Amino acid sequence: MVKDMTHEEISLYIINTLTENKKAEFESALDELQPYDVAAIYKELPEKQKSRFLLYLKYDLLADLMEELEKSEQLELLNMLGIEKSSKVLDLMDNDDLATLLHELSPEKIDSLLSEMDTKESNAVKDIMSYPPETAGRIMTNRFVWIRNYYTVREAVDKLKSFAEFAETLNYLYVIDEDSKLVGVVSYRDLLLAGEGDRIDNIMFERVISVTVTTDQEDVAKTVERYDFISVPVVDENHVLLGIITVDDVIDVVIKEANEDIEKLSASGKAIDFDTKTLVAAARRLPWLILLLFIGLISGRIISSFEDTLKQVVALTFFMPMIAGMTGNTGTQSLAVVVRGLISHDIDKKVIFRLIMRELGVGISIGATCAILISIIAYIWQGSLTLGFVVGSSLFFTLIIGTLAGTIIPIILYRIKIDPAVASGPLITTLNDIFSLLTYFGIATMFLHYLM
Amino acid sequence: MVKDMTHEEISLYIINTLTENKKAEFESALDELQPYDVAAIYKELPEKQKSRFLLYLKYDLLADLMEELEKSEQLELLNMLGIEKSSKVLDLMDNDDLATLLHELSPEKIDSLLSEMDTKESNAVKDIMSYPPETAGRIMTNRFVWIRNYYTVREAVDKLKSFAEFAETLNYLYVIDEDSKLVGVVSYRDLLLAGEGDRIDNIMFERVISVTVTTDQEDVAKTVERYDFISVPVVDENHVLLGIITVDDVIDVVIKEANEDIEKLSASGKAIDFDTKTLVAAARRLPWLILLLFIGLISGRIISSFEDTLKQVVALTFFMPMIAGMTGNTGTQSLAVVVRGLISHDIDKKVIFRLIMRELGVGISIGATCAILISIIAYIWQGSLTLGFVVGSSLFFTLIIGTLAGTIIPIILYRIKIDPAVASGPLITTLNDIFSLLTYFGIATMFLHYLM
Repeated sequence: MVKDMTHEEISLYIINTLTENKKAEFESALDELQPYDVAAIYKELPEKQKSRFLLYLKYDLLADLMEELEKSEQLELLNMLGIEKSSKVLDLMDNDDLATLLHELSPEKIDSLLSEMDTKESNAVKDIMSYPPETAGRIMTNRFVWIRNYYTVREAVDKLKSFAEFAETLNYLYVIDEDSKLVGVVSYRDLLLAGEGDRIDNIMFERVISVTVTTDQEDVAKTVERYDFISVPVVDENHVLLGIITVDDVIDVVIKEANEDIEKLSASGKAIDFDTKTLVAAARRLPWLILLLFIGLISGRIISSFEDTLKQVVALTFFMPMIAGMTGNTGTQSLAVVVRGLISHDIDKKVIFRLIMRELGVGISIGATCAILISIIAYIWQGSLTLGFVVGSSLFFTLIIGTLAGTIIPIILYRIKIDPAVASGPLITTLNDIFSLLTYFGIATMFLHYLM
Repeated sequence: MVKDMTHEEISLYIINTLTENKKAEFESALDELQPYDVAAIYKELPEKQKSRFLLYLKYDLLADLMEELEKSEQLELLNMLGIEKSSKVLDLMDNDDLATLLHELSPEKIDSLLSEMDTKESNAVKDIMSYPPETAGRIMTNRFVWIRNYYTVREAVDKLKSFAEFAETLNYLYVIDEDSKLVGVVSYRDLLLAGEGDRIDNIMFERVISVTVTTDQEDVAKTVERYDFISVPVVDENHVLLGIITVDDVIDVVIKEANEDIEKLSASGKAIDFDTKTLVAAARRLPWLILLLFIGLISGRIISSFEDTLKQVVALTFFMPMIAGMTGNTGTQSLAVVVRGLISHDIDKKVIFRLIMRELGVGISIGATCAILISIIAYIWQGSLTLGFVVGSSLFFTLIIGTLAGTIIPIILYRIKIDPAVASGPLITTLNDIFSLLTYFGIATMFLHYLM
């Protein structure tokens, strides 16, 4: 029915089934929609249609809908459903999504939601919530089908059939032994291609790549990306299979981590998006700005200590923003390369040494080019050969310093297990401001005699 | 055999089979490895083992290996293989990977590689290369299994079996009608769960979400991410099925696009990673730096035009870097939020208006807070109430200007179909430098009488 309709037409059609109480038509239309579309339609509904929409929706679709909503919308929906219906929906939600929902609620609210749920489900969620944030344990789901190594293909398919609705859509079955240890993997395709009587341990692939519950989610993403997997199994330290992570969650991790890197590199504040409220956004950005304000005053202090030099050669001021800016720019360039590189590379001493040498070379090349250029410009503009030399040689040194600072500082942070993107954006710009002013005024003061 | 070995042990074992000519052991070990691991081992091999390694490898594994290598390594490998063996390997490669490899080669080189290939395969690659870069057409593969709507489940499984090695590992079969139009999709799970005699058009899902060949790859990624798909079908304007895009390629797109955003926001130059050569890296970064150098000189010109003001109140210089820096910082913060937001949001006039109003509010809140703070500090430090007022009120206005510039400029670029991240990082910092110096010295000159 809704097959060839546009989004708007479907929306209108759904509203129509709601206002005219056509539950059968409503259900058959919903059957053809993806969860994302169901959520999009739900969000656009007039308030008074929302409750009927929820009333008509089956539990599994309610769980799908929940998984597509933002946290505030999820809580609103749970309130509209009431406690009894809510608990049934929560039972059906993927446990990783549920753990994310519960994560930031108050302990009382969590207890009240969990207490009404099926014990097995609520225990599974509690398990997931017991792992540190941003680890494999937090994003894994326990909704997958495992099989035993002695099963035949027919037995495996039978098990898959009986758990068909329960398992996340994916295309491997993981194989465990009598101690629940992960010993193999079989793809649905292998099952289709094998004979019904074949034993699983004869057709399974034994060298299963897995991650442990405490693996950082960025490393999980790295694994899935490298091996082009659809899902990856999660085991504990004894290799007991605990859950799986699916590629859709990995995409979310990749996007989230990239956004976090950009946030940090630009010091733009945690998790601000188009929907963040004004005062919240301002409050999240202010800490960095106030810190930067004070650090900016250090630059001011340095300038003020060279007050005499400045008074005698005001022209020095003209090149100050350019030198500080350029040093900051090269630092940021190096930083961006390092921060993104650390994500996709395995890092050892050799790689680091080679990188630092490369950046030193880059600093020298860039420094020499820009220095020659600015010397000529300064000489032509201000008519002083000495000023040209002072500005040029300062820029040469500050660009090398800037490049190295942008390379070495994030590597040190990475080595001492601090996320290199955390402090380095503003830190590097600021340190480079200070380095560059000290170098510039230092050289200028040395040549003050000739500048006047 | 290699099941429980570490990467190093496997490497040694493989080298051992190579030096001792144990081809059978070599092949059975390779059978248990993932393409990523095969490539990692190959790259670490001593030069003299590499050619034997390639000699032992079967064509399909050679194709897998190719797909894991960087372009320069791919070309080296093709050279080692010789033209005849190369063409067989190219035949087996995924066409999207092959198109990427060929993309930057000279026309003669492309012709010589394609001419030795199977005509059907080389035509498929030429097709892919005819679509614009960064579109769905360029990242799709034609290695998938389609079925007809009148097939039975048994016929579908039989076709799947005969094309098992040919098709990329995934878990849907796309269904086409007599005109090759996409009319449905069936998952492998559906096939396992259905009866052998069921007709495909009775069990298929009809409302297939697809993309067209000219869809931007970022929009493809958005679709896959929203719907949590493992693959998405690609159709032409007549809804004829041309290929599929798999989730592993989508992850690569997501990572690439995020890296590009970071490159642009930090003006760090195109595609510089840990392996880029020094002079190449320097050459890629220099254009931005030289542009920024000249723009930095505009700031210098502005300062020089206020030379008289500066000569009379040198203390004004002390706050110059702080004001320019802070304005740049707020601009970058807003920019990062907007650039990342544009990726995940559908943008309309309402959203833009709300965003600009929000950022205006943020600018006012941040401006007021920082202005009060700096007025007090400037007064205490320099003992001048007027200076405190001048610095504070300048900062208030420049922070509002900076925030708005960081919001409005990328939106305008987006509206006129220029990638908002392209010019905006350096552009905004620079424009904000100019705005802030004009504001600061403008206000200072107005109050010069009181400052002295």
